[in-house]
Amino acid sequence: MKVTERLAALRQEMREAGLAAYVVPGNDPHASEYMASHWCEMQWLSGFSGEAGTMVVTLEKALLWTDSRYYLQAGIELKDSTIELMRESDIDCPSITEWLTSQESGVKSQELVGVNPEMFSVNDFGEWRDQFSEAGIELKSIDLIKPIWTEGRPAIPQDKLYPYSADFAGETVESKLARMREQLAKKKANAMIISALDEIAWLLNIRGNDVEFNPVVISYVVLEVDKCTLFVDSAKIDSPAQNYLDFNNIDVQPYEAVFDYIRGLQGTVLYDGARVNEALFEAIPEGCKKINTKSPILIDKAKKNAVELEGERIAMRQDAVALTRFFKWLEEEAFSESRVKSQESRVTEWTLMEKLHEFRLMGENFVEESFGTIAGYQGNGAIVHYAATKDHCAEVKPEGMLLLDSGGQYLDGTTDITRTVWLGGRIPQQAKLDYTYVLKGHIALALARFPRGTRGNQLDALAKQFMWEAGITYGHGTGHGVGHFLGCHEGPQNVRTDNNPTALEVGHIISDEPGIYRTGKWGIRTENLITVIPAKQTKATTTEDEWLAFETLTLCFYDTSLIEMSLMTEDEIDWINAYHVRIYKEVSPLLNEDERKYLARKCAAIEFTA
Amino acid sequence: MKVTERLAALRQEMREAGLAAYVVPGNDPHASEYMASHWCEMQWLSGFSGEAGTMVVTLEKALLWTDSRYYLQAGIELKDSTIELMRESDIDCPSITEWLTSQESGVKSQELVGVNPEMFSVNDFGEWRDQFSEAGIELKSIDLIKPIWTEGRPAIPQDKLYPYSADFAGETVESKLARMREQLAKKKANAMIISALDEIAWLLNIRGNDVEFNPVVISYVVLEVDKCTLFVDSAKIDSPAQNYLDFNNIDVQPYEAVFDYIRGLQGTVLYDGARVNEALFEAIPEGCKKINTKSPILIDKAKKNAVELEGERIAMRQDAVALTRFFKWLEEEAFSESRVKSQESRVTEWTLMEKLHEFRLMGENFVEESFGTIAGYQGNGAIVHYAATKDHCAEVKPEGMLLLDSGGQYLDGTTDITRTVWLGGRIPQQAKLDYTYVLKGHIALALARFPRGTRGNQLDALAKQFMWEAGITYGHGTGHGVGHFLGCHEGPQNVRTDNNPTALEVGHIISDEPGIYRTGKWGIRTENLITVIPAKQTKATTTEDEWLAFETLTLCFYDTSLIEMSLMTEDEIDWINAYHVRIYKEVSPLLNEDERKYLARKCAAIEFTA
Repeated sequence: MKVTERLAALRQEMREAGLAAYVVPGNDPHASEYMASHWCEMQWLSGFSGEAGTMVVTLEKALLWTDSRYYLQAGIELKDSTIELMRESDIDCPSITEWLTSQESGVKSQELVGVNPEMFSVNDFGEWRDQFSEAGIELKSIDLIKPIWTEGRPAIPQDKLYPYSADFAGETVESKLARMREQLAKKKANAMIISALDEIAWLLNIRGNDVEFNPVVISYVVLEVDKCTLFVDSAKIDSPAQNYLDFNNIDVQPYEAVFDYIRGLQGTVLYDGARVNEALFEAIPEGCKKINTKSPILIDKAKKNAVELEGERIAMRQDAVALTRFFKWLEEEAFSESRVKSQESRVTEWTLMEKLHEFRLMGENFVEESFGTIAGYQGNGAIVHYAATKDHCAEVKPEGMLLLDSGGQYLDGTTDITRTVWLGGRIPQQAKLDYTYVLKGHIALALARFPRGTRGNQLDALAKQFMWEAGITYGHGTGHGVGHFLGCHEGPQNVRTDNNPTALEVGHIISDEPGIYRTGKWGIRTENLITVIPAKQTKATTTEDEWLAFETLTLCFYDTSLIEMSLMTEDEIDWINAYHVRIYKEVSPLLNEDERKYLARKCAAIEFTA
Repeated sequence: MKVTERLAALRQEMREAGLAAYVVPGNDPHASEYMASHWCEMQWLSGFSGEAGTMVVTLEKALLWTDSRYYLQAGIELKDSTIELMRESDIDCPSITEWLTSQESGVKSQELVGVNPEMFSVNDFGEWRDQFSEAGIELKSIDLIKPIWTEGRPAIPQDKLYPYSADFAGETVESKLARMREQLAKKKANAMIISALDEIAWLLNIRGNDVEFNPVVISYVVLEVDKCTLFVDSAKIDSPAQNYLDFNNIDVQPYEAVFDYIRGLQGTVLYDGARVNEALFEAIPEGCKKINTKSPILIDKAKKNAVELEGERIAMRQDAVALTRFFKWLEEEAFSESRVKSQESRVTEWTLMEKLHEFRLMGENFVEESFGTIAGYQGNGAIVHYAATKDHCAEVKPEGMLLLDSGGQYLDGTTDITRTVWLGGRIPQQAKLDYTYVLKGHIALALARFPRGTRGNQLDALAKQFMWEAGITYGHGTGHGVGHFLGCHEGPQNVRTDNNPTALEVGHIISDEPGIYRTGKWGIRTENLITVIPAKQTKATTTEDEWLAFETLTLCFYDTSLIEMSLMTEDEIDWINAYHVRIYKEVSPLLNEDERKYLARKCAAIEFTA
C-alpha cells in the first residue's frame, strides 16, 4: 500500500463517517516521549519517518506539520506523496487549528473534524474543541486508522514486565499506594486514572522493555481506595511477575479492558488532563464528579528518596568509568598508527557512538542508553537535535571540536552528560570564549544557593548571564528533570525561560546544560546532572527561609584546554579543581593503572592567572 | 457616630436587604493606589486608619483583615470597636472567602453576601462569585455604605483638571486616540471602557490634583470609534480646560452619567477586567459582546517615547540637585554646633523628610512628592513600609545607618530613589557586607544585557545572587514600573519573583532596588530608575535576536564608605566610577561652587583593591 493509497483509504472512511477533515498527531495513548512502533500512525500514513509531526487530511488536501529539524528530511520523504509540508517553526506558518478554521482548508461551519481521542490529552483535546467551536466546527472522537492499517501494523510490544526491587526504588509499593490513597482521601475521590508509563512504573515498582530508552511497561492503572488494577497484556506477565503483583494486591486485567472498567466507576474520579488521554476521559460515566489535577505521582516521583539518590551516585561512577575509558581511547588509540594499519582507520561520528556504547556495556547494572547518543563533530555539533546514523555521519579527524551528549539507564539510576572536547590543532579564540561562557554559566547554576520556593525559571539567567553579556544565547532549556531508572526527561520541574510554576524541591534532579551553537562551525554544550539539597545555614541569614543548593551528581572532567583563563574568577577555578579532585577520588578505584594515570592527567589542577 | 453605631446602622441595612454578610474593601472605583478620602469606606466603618484592609460584617460579627505592617496600629485603633483583627500575613489566617464559606461565619448556603460592585474589579468579583457559589452562597451587588455614611463624608475632589502639553507628553491626544481606535478596529469592537485614572490622564494628556502623589483626575472615559466621552464633575473644568477638550473632540458628561451611558452601548465592548470595576461591567447591556482584554493603554503607556524619556532625564537632574543639597546639609549642617546653638538641635526622621521636601521644592517644574518619603533611621530602616510622622519619629544622631526612599513628581517626569548612608561611628563589618551584596546586585541588574522577550522575573535572580550566596534575601519586588508624571508604581512590567508574563520592552522604566533588612539593626536598599534600551550588537552574537540593556536614569552617588572593597570586581568598580563621573558632569553645572566641591568629593573615584 503506497502513501497515496493510504490517503485514499482514509478519505473513503472519512466520507462514510461524514468528516470534512481528519488529524493524525505523532502521539501515543500514554503521552510518551519514545513510542512503540504500533502507534506510529502519522509516520505510516505520511511516509515521513521523523519523530515529530502531525498529519492533516481533508477530502482535497493532505498536509504534514513538522518543525525545522525535519524540513530537509520531510522534503525528501514526502516527494510524490501529494502531501504538502507545513513548516511550523516558520513565523508565518498557521497552526493546525488556524488552518483548519480558515477558508483555505475548505472545512465549513457545521462540519466535523475527526481525531482518535486516545492520541490527545484531555487538555489538548479541550483546547482544540474550544478553538473549533468558535468557527462552528465540531471535533469528533473516532479512530479511522485502525480500519485501514490492517496489514503489517506492528503489535503492541509484549515484552515481559519485571519487579523493580525496593532495594533500588527505596520505597515499597505498599507505601507508595498508601501515599497516593491519602491523596484520594484528601480530594474525597474514589479513583484516579493513571496512563503515563513512567508514573505506572514508579507507582508499582515495575519495569519493562516496551520502548527504546525508557524501561517502561505499556499499561494503564486505575487506583481506587480499596484496590489497584493494572491493565496490561497478559503475555507480559510471567509467573514471578504474577506472584509479585498478587503479593502487592494488584489486580490484572487486559490492556483494552481499561475503558469498560472506567465506565463502571462511581463517585469522584481524579485525572491529570495534561497526561491522561481523551478516550479514557470520555469513558468516565456522566454521573461521576471529575477532578482535573496535576498528577500526585508526577509530583512525588520527581522528589528522589535517599536510596534513589545513592543509586544515582553509583550509576554516575559506572558512567564515569565508561566516559574515562572512551576519552582515553579517543585521545590515545582512535587515531593511532596501529589502528590505521589494522584498516580500522576511518573514525566517524558513528564509530564514536558505537565505541561509547561498548564502554557503557561493560558497566555494572547497565541496561541501555537513556536516549540516542548525539556525537556532533565540528558544525554538526551546532545542530541541536543532530543524530548521526551509520550511513549518514561525518568522518572525525584529530582536530577541531566534538560535542558528545549521551546517557545510560542503569538499574541504579539514569545518567545524562554532555562534554565538548577539542581533538587537536590550533584553538580559535572565539571557541575558547564560547566554551568559557558556557562553563561559567554551568558553574554559576551548580553553585546557586536560593530560598525554598524558587522556580527554575528564576535561575535560568544565572546560566546565561555571561554569554548574554557577549550578546549570545541559546534556544533550548537549560535544565530538564531526570527520572530514576526511568525517563531521562521528566517533569514537573525544569530550568527554562518558560513560566513553569513548579518550585525546585529537595530531591529533584535536573540537568545543567547551557550551550552555544555556531552554524557550520561548532556546538558547545556542557552538561551535568545536579540534585537539589538543603543548603547549610549561614550566620548572615536574615529570614526564616529554608535555603536550597545543588549537589553535582555527574563525575566527568572538563576539557580544560578550551578554557580562556583570563575570564575565570578564582572561585570558579577553585570549584573546577575541587570537582576534579572529587572525580579522581571517586572514579580512580574503579580503573586500572593506565586509566588512573590518564584520569589524573585530565583532573590536574589548573591555576588562577588573572 | 461611633464605630459601634456605624456597625449597627450597617446591620440594619443588611437586614432590610436580606444579607447575611457585607464586605467593605479598602478600594476605590478606579483601582487606585492612592485614594480620595471620599472612598475611605473601610476606614470610616472600622475606625482603623491604615491604608490596606478589608472589613467583613455579619449580623453577629465584625472583622478586619489587614497585613503585618498594620497589626500594631490596628490592635490599638480597633480597641472597643467589637471588631476582630484578622492577621492576613499569618500562615494560618483564612482568606475572606474561606472564612465566609466556613461554619464560623454563620453564613449558610442560599444566603447572600453583599458588596459594592464599584469597589471590586470585574476579575476579583468573578473569582469571589465562583468561590462563594461552590458553597451555595450568592454574591449580591449593593451599596450599603452610601445610605449610612451621610454625615461628614468628604466630597469627591473637585480640583481643576489641566491640559498636559504634548511638549511634555511627546504625543498629541489625536495621535493617541487614533492608536487606540486601531485597537478597537483590530478587535472589531465599538467601545472601550477606561476607569484607571492614570490611563485616562495619559490618553487625554490631562493632569489634576485629586489625589496625593498622583497627578490624576477622577473620571471615566468611554472611547468609541467616532467619539470619546470624558465623565467628570463639571466643577473641575474651567474655560481653558473646556477649550482644550473641545479642540480635541472630547465630549464631557457628568461623572455619575457613565453608568447610563454604558447602558446605551451597542455591539462589542472592550474592558480590562483587572482594572474596570464590576459596576461598570454590570451596566453593559446583555446584548453586547464583552471582551476582557489587557488594557492597550496600559501597554502603550508603559513604553515611554523619546520626549518622555528626555523629560525623565531633566527631572532626574533636578532631583539630583535636591538630593546633593540634602546630603550636604545632612553631613555639614544638621549636626553642626551653630545649629545646636540655634535651638534646632533635635534632628528627627521627620526633620529629614521636611528638609528633603524643601530642597525638592526649589527644583524647576517640581509639583509634589511621588509617594510618602521613607526616612528610616537604624532599625526603622528594616521596616519595609515605615512611615515616620511628626509625632512618631525617631531622633537621628550623627552615627549609624539611614535609609532614605523618596521621589518627586515633576512636569518633566517622575522620580523614585533610595540611598542608604552611614552617618558616623565605626561601621560594623556585617553592615558593609550587607551594603555590598545589595550594591553588587543593583549593579548586576543595571548591567544586564538580555534578548528581546525576556521577562523581569528572569532577571530577578541577577539582583539577588550575591546575597543568596550568603543566605540572605528580601520579600519585596526588585523593580516596579514607573509612570511619566503619573503613578510612581505602574504596570504591566516589573522585576519580581512572580510569574508576570510581560516581557521587558524598549522604553519601559523600572526601579532597581534590592535590599537587606535586619530587624532592630538597619535596613539597606539602593534604588535607581533604569530604562530599557536597545543593546549594541556584538561581534560574538550567534542569533538574530534583538538585544536589550538598561540605561540608568537616576543621578545620585552611592555612599562608598559602606562598600566592602574586597568583594567588588574590577568591572563593578569601573561601573561605579563611570557613573559618578557622569553624575558630576550632568549635575555640577546646576550647583554653586560649594555644592560642586561637595559633589566632587562624593563622586571621587574608588580603587580596585583585590
